[in-house]
Amino acid sequence: MKKIYTGKTKDVYELDDKTVLLKFKDDVTGKDGVFDPGENQVGLQIEGAGRAALAMTQFFYEKLNALGLNTHYVSADLDKNEAVVKKAIVFGKGAEVIVRYRAVGSFIRRYGDYIESGTEIPTYVEVTLKDDVKGDPLITKDALALLGIMSEESYEELADLAKKIGDVVKEELAKKGLELYDIKFEFGLIDGKVALIDEISGGNMRAYKGDEYILPLELEKILLG
Amino acid sequence: MKKIYTGKTKDVYELDDKTVLLKFKDDVTGKDGVFDPGENQVGLQIEGAGRAALAMTQFFYEKLNALGLNTHYVSADLDKNEAVVKKAIVFGKGAEVIVRYRAVGSFIRRYGDYIESGTEIPTYVEVTLKDDVKGDPLITKDALALLGIMSEESYEELADLAKKIGDVVKEELAKKGLELYDIKFEFGLIDGKVALIDEISGGNMRAYKGDEYILPLELEKILLG
Repeated sequence: MKKIYTGKTKDVYELDDKTVLLKFKDDVTGKDGVFDPGENQVGLQIEGAGRAALAMTQFFYEKLNALGLNTHYVSADLDKNEAVVKKAIVFGKGAEVIVRYRAVGSFIRRYGDYIESGTEIPTYVEVTLKDDVKGDPLITKDALALLGIMSEESYEELADLAKKIGDVVKEELAKKGLELYDIKFEFGLIDGKVALIDEISGGNMRAYKGDEYILPLELEKILLG
Repeated sequence: MKKIYTGKTKDVYELDDKTVLLKFKDDVTGKDGVFDPGENQVGLQIEGAGRAALAMTQFFYEKLNALGLNTHYVSADLDKNEAVVKKAIVFGKGAEVIVRYRAVGSFIRRYGDYIESGTEIPTYVEVTLKDDVKGDPLITKDALALLGIMSEESYEELADLAKKIGDVVKEELAKKGLELYDIKFEFGLIDGKVALIDEISGGNMRAYKGDEYILPLELEKILLG
């Protein structure tokens, strides 16, 4: 198997011209030893983090596929920390899609003069470019089209799909008494259609139980345990 | 006359319930003594800068009003460095609207991985919040509506008006052999309709003659001299 990408939390191997293998690692993003899903650097290693991320990924993607929402997911092997997914064309050098239900994190860092941290908001979708040096800059629909990163049609498709998928995750968390504040997705094109790619794990979302922030591994336990 | 606002490049006095007086100063924005229209701090004083800014403001606003484009402008007195304008309700704590014709400045600081500095682009409009501490964050149409800063209808009205006004400035510069790279506007609501407010001066735009950047005072001389 040829390794084609070494990521922060997983590596990617080529299987054939249509599919790749994702190998989940025990690295999580954060800073100074504290987990932060918004951080770009690997901050610490947590034993079992890779397996937990994959278990949540499997849990959600199987639901999404069953609901007919377009994703790259084919199958997962929890014993090997591996998943098989369809190849996708990423937007530009990678774009991140954030679905927000409460104003926290970078939304407050940008717009904190206009809204109190933690305020419930109508479902809001925004796109940032993966660019560690430039601090993942926010980008508008118009600029995405102008720069040839994403057509306006793909943007609309993506925003709609992101909200639907966000709502599925929110509902599953709610069943366990948890509240989803925000979640970060990545999308790509598979056969010209927008599809969810990458993992869905605790490291990509902020979940709370009342006022208490739930750490990714804890979240996996509550959801799947 | 009651002073109601002390700005970086001008002060504002109340005249009556419908109009205010703008008093232009000789301060310009920049850093370390170098003029930069994108900077938020007053970097230097240039004698005659206030009068030059007002002369350009008068020049453009009289054209815009004659074209039926909605503005706050009533009249100007060049000898006193003063203009009379209609009162407007600003969006939130002030929003800046940038119309871009070439990719330079903060567009490159954000998206420089996707486009070479100086590249011609289809007319592009974006909105940033006036917030010196947070570095004037970019904001999407959706977030403006969500935060109650600007309705979607006002946004569309504003984007359309900004392009039209940008094009007027671009054409006037072209008549003198200059090219407009980008321009920063401020808009407000007057009687519920979106209107251009604030000055239109060299300090709010980047103009080039071939490869040479034209300083604000030089620009005023070329345009009006």
